[in-house]
Amino acid sequence: MLIRSFEPDDWPGVWRIVEPVFREGATFPNAVDTTEQEAHCYWVEAPLATMVALDEAGVVRGIYYLRANQPPLGAHVANCGYVVDSSCRGQGIGSALCVHSQDEARRRSFRAMQYNLVVETNEAGVRLWRRHGFELVGTLPGAFRHADLGYVDAYVMYKKLVE
Amino acid sequence: MLIRSFEPDDWPGVWRIVEPVFREGATFPNAVDTTEQEAHCYWVEAPLATMVALDEAGVVRGIYYLRANQPPLGAHVANCGYVVDSSCRGQGIGSALCVHSQDEARRRSFRAMQYNLVVETNEAGVRLWRRHGFELVGTLPGAFRHADLGYVDAYVMYKKLVE
Repeated sequence: MLIRSFEPDDWPGVWRIVEPVFREGATFPNAVDTTEQEAHCYWVEAPLATMVALDEAGVVRGIYYLRANQPPLGAHVANCGYVVDSSCRGQGIGSALCVHSQDEARRRSFRAMQYNLVVETNEAGVRLWRRHGFELVGTLPGAFRHADLGYVDAYVMYKKLVE
Repeated sequence: MLIRSFEPDDWPGVWRIVEPVFREGATFPNAVDTTEQEAHCYWVEAPLATMVALDEAGVVRGIYYLRANQPPLGAHVANCGYVVDSSCRGQGIGSALCVHSQDEARRRSFRAMQYNLVVETNEAGVRLWRRHGFELVGTLPGAFRHADLGYVDAYVMYKKLVE
């Protein structure tokens, strides 16, 4: 598994794994009918950095974005979002992306990382991020409108990257 | 005290009370050297709604913005920011704006309101929002770079607007 910066030719492979996640409406707050152009803006144009995980055949199996979570006086806290190809769950790709994103954030002088809206029903994600040192800072009652389940709680998760 | 929608002629009065708050770097995450144009975008262009509080003489004494806190699947949660003229503290303007913003949010079908980055040293603000039913959901360690105090904690605060 190679993790490297996104290149324009990666986009079709990214869209292949990202589109079903948006359509599902279970983890990201983006509209379930997000267009390919909007998704490109969200994953590639708006963030500070976009990284992809490629398998041995060069197929995109995962992606994350990294951005500052707030304007300047809160811009030392990073925010990331991750997607792993649903056909490759349980292979450690999410873990590898999570570790890589923390290293990348430290390299860019971020002091902490925050996830703003971790859907409570995304149990695998919550477990993964806890394992990598993220703390569940608080619970936002009914803050996520799950496409199937309706209003569900969401967590704020946070990890300091420096002492 | 009249609270009504912002009108373009209000801008000089808004900038008069907003500029020192940004320059101070103690409550909003915006850069201390934010330009007037950037401030106009932040307070007037970007939000869903901007409301001003005017005294009997028609002088702007307070302002708030209202926006959706997240993309569509989290867009039923509102976010607001408030500024009160520093020469008019303790007159209930902050309270009036807080109540007005909740009514306005309900009117626009928001189901909750969230403050993402309440600086711990902004004790008057924290007290005010608690009094108006906002709960301290969690603490973000070192998430705000205070212009005078360096890295300080910030709170996530949240209130449901409907049952």
